[in-house]
Amino acid sequence: MAQMERSLRLVSLLGSVRRGSFNGAIARALPELAPQGVTITPLGPVGELPHYDADLEAVGFPPAVLAMGAAIGAADGVIIVSPEYNYSVPGVLKNAIDWLSRLPDKPFGGKAVAIQSGSPGLLGGARAQYHLRQSLVFLDARVLNKPEVMVGQIAGKLDAATGALTDQATRNFIAGQLVAFAAFVRG
Amino acid sequence: MAQMERSLRLVSLLGSVRRGSFNGAIARALPELAPQGVTITPLGPVGELPHYDADLEAVGFPPAVLAMGAAIGAADGVIIVSPEYNYSVPGVLKNAIDWLSRLPDKPFGGKAVAIQSGSPGLLGGARAQYHLRQSLVFLDARVLNKPEVMVGQIAGKLDAATGALTDQATRNFIAGQLVAFAAFVRG
Amino acid sequence: MAQMERSLRLVSLLGSVRRGSFNGAIARALPELAPQGVTITPLGPVGELPHYDADLEAVGFPPAVLAMGAAIGAADGVIIVSPEYNYSVPGVLKNAIDWLSRLPDKPFGGKAVAIQSGSPGLLGGARAQYHLRQSLVFLDARVLNKPEVMVGQIAGKLDAATGALTDQATRNFIAGQLVAFAAFVRG
Amino acid sequence: MAQMERSLRLVSLLGSVRRGSFNGAIARALPELAPQGVTITPLGPVGELPHYDADLEAVGFPPAVLAMGAAIGAADGVIIVSPEYNYSVPGVLKNAIDWLSRLPDKPFGGKAVAIQSGSPGLLGGARAQYHLRQSLVFLDARVLNKPEVMVGQIAGKLDAATGALTDQATRNFIAGQLVAFAAFVRG
Repeated sequence: MAQMERSLRLVSLLGSVRRGSFNGAIARALPELAPQGVTITPLGPVGELPHYDADLEAVGFPPAVLAMGAAIGAADGVIIVSPEYNYSVPGVLKNAIDWLSRLPDKPFGGKAVAIQSGSPGLLGGARAQYHLRQSLVFLDARVLNKPEVMVGQIAGKLDAATGALTDQATRNFIAGQLVAFAAFVRG
Repeated sequence: MAQMERSLRLVSLLGSVRRGSFNGAIARALPELAPQGVTITPLGPVGELPHYDADLEAVGFPPAVLAMGAAIGAADGVIIVSPEYNYSVPGVLKNAIDWLSRLPDKPFGGKAVAIQSGSPGLLGGARAQYHLRQSLVFLDARVLNKPEVMVGQIAGKLDAATGALTDQATRNFIAGQLVAFAAFVRG
Repeated sequence: MAQMERSLRLVSLLGSVRRGSFNGAIARALPELAPQGVTITPLGPVGELPHYDADLEAVGFPPAVLAMGAAIGAADGVIIVSPEYNYSVPGVLKNAIDWLSRLPDKPFGGKAVAIQSGSPGLLGGARAQYHLRQSLVFLDARVLNKPEVMVGQIAGKLDAATGALTDQATRNFIAGQLVAFAAFVRG
Repeated sequence: MAQMERSLRLVSLLGSVRRGSFNGAIARALPELAPQGVTITPLGPVGELPHYDADLEAVGFPPAVLAMGAAIGAADGVIIVSPEYNYSVPGVLKNAIDWLSRLPDKPFGGKAVAIQSGSPGLLGGARAQYHLRQSLVFLDARVLNKPEVMVGQIAGKLDAATGALTDQATRNFIAGQLVAFAAFVRG
């Protein structure tokens, strides 16, 4: 009889704020794509954090930053799902990282992280992912190498009516990353 | 008799919002370091722009974005002065770039750009500069290669009382980049 | 009557050494894709240069390095055509750049450069291109921003029998970059 | 009584081939800086590998590649010590990685890797390290985040007569990384 694997609580961090976000479609699909014993809960929206400002930090961390940091700290791993803007990480996502990096308990320190991105073009957000990985070196996160989820031509992989991620090959590929990530987290 | 060189109007874009910003000290020193015939005017603060949101864009560009875009469009060149956050571009600066990239008249297209950064550490913001350069490829800007201004250990180069950039070697080096940049813009 | 544009002599630098190189197929197609008045001549193979070694340099630059540097110096611009190896620039191409960077007359200094890459995968060598661009900052080259030529799934774009680049959409796209590059060089 | 930690056998890979290499001085110091129970053995010189060529690979891997791959495969971890050339990884080192990446048993797969670099300038090779990290994502290596060893102004940290790395602060810092790396390898 197979040994029970411990259940995992993951959180997802979405790098886009628009309602019909392509990457939001990926993030929303994650709970149903997760392997057994793994839950994936969305973190609060990055758009709710103010711009990082050391003067503001000196007064006190905004509650949304504290909440996001606590949720990451309590999670077994983080899945960052983000578009690429201007060949790099969206400012609004980087801003969340800039805040989180300042929290005294370093929520990303040693934390397992997986990255997913989607884009209308062919590259699927690749350029943003490598910039994000560089920031995660500083944060001392433990980032999954492979498989890399870069969903190109994403518009055609969503349901036209609901905007849900319905392309089965893409769903399978993402589910495969989640299996690899669960093993990496438990590792 | 030497031919008169045409006067240049440059603008500076500051990537930090805190009042006592080290990079703000660099940006504030620029007008007095500029060569003859070159004016350098600060753009509005990046912290005044909302987070980029395509839904907000669909309603209309925020006035601060339009004003910043117009000022860049009217300028002969842009000097971006920024700290490095988490081995990359500050989210708040990247957010301004994300907005500006969406303006129909593409203010950065073909625009001459110079980059300056300062940091408390030894590297002087180098990592942020190369990420910024990658975004500027997409924006189709014309970016000065050299000299690269990366001011390390910047705290010791400011006046303790006023916070002004007083280190003469640093001032000379920046003035040298401005001379090179003026030639690049005119070139 | 339209003014005659000055003719341009460009050279191509191929980053792969295998006989049936996909990127070699791109490089071989360039002369016939060049706009009127533009010739494109291949530089010597990068595989003929020894590994860069400062001790060897101290004795004297290898003839193949001198020849390559002289050809670049005499050209109006350089087109680098390269595969991506391990998410970066092939070592053998980077080695050529390492040698060329040491030549006293700095053949890449101020030189116009365009980049093209092809790969069997979807990304078309994008990751190599941004690393290459970073090196070209140091070399003080003048690198074309757009259009970026990244030919994904290249195997299906070559003639099965001859290995020639026959996919018409790809040929047109590359020809478009060459037009843009010619204007950039003349600009 | 404290449990004995298992002994570790690490190998070092040097990215420079010149006899008086600054980074060679770092690599040569590693065995004496290693914590108790850790041995560090140099791999063969990267300059002995031919340029990567898929046609050559089709005939058979060169013996030096096979030997290097076997030594990495048998080691508990790899320390890559390299200069920065032209804001990136030296071609001769990247070439070794290009060969090693082709070995069927993937010697870098899952392998613990630490990176060290030194340079005459202030940045200490930082730019090369982030490019190398990107390649190591593809190789699926497990790369230590911190501390990052980037030895700036390295010429002044070597013994003028012997070329040995004698600067005590630098030696201590490197020894600290080796302690962290040993824990990372064992972890």
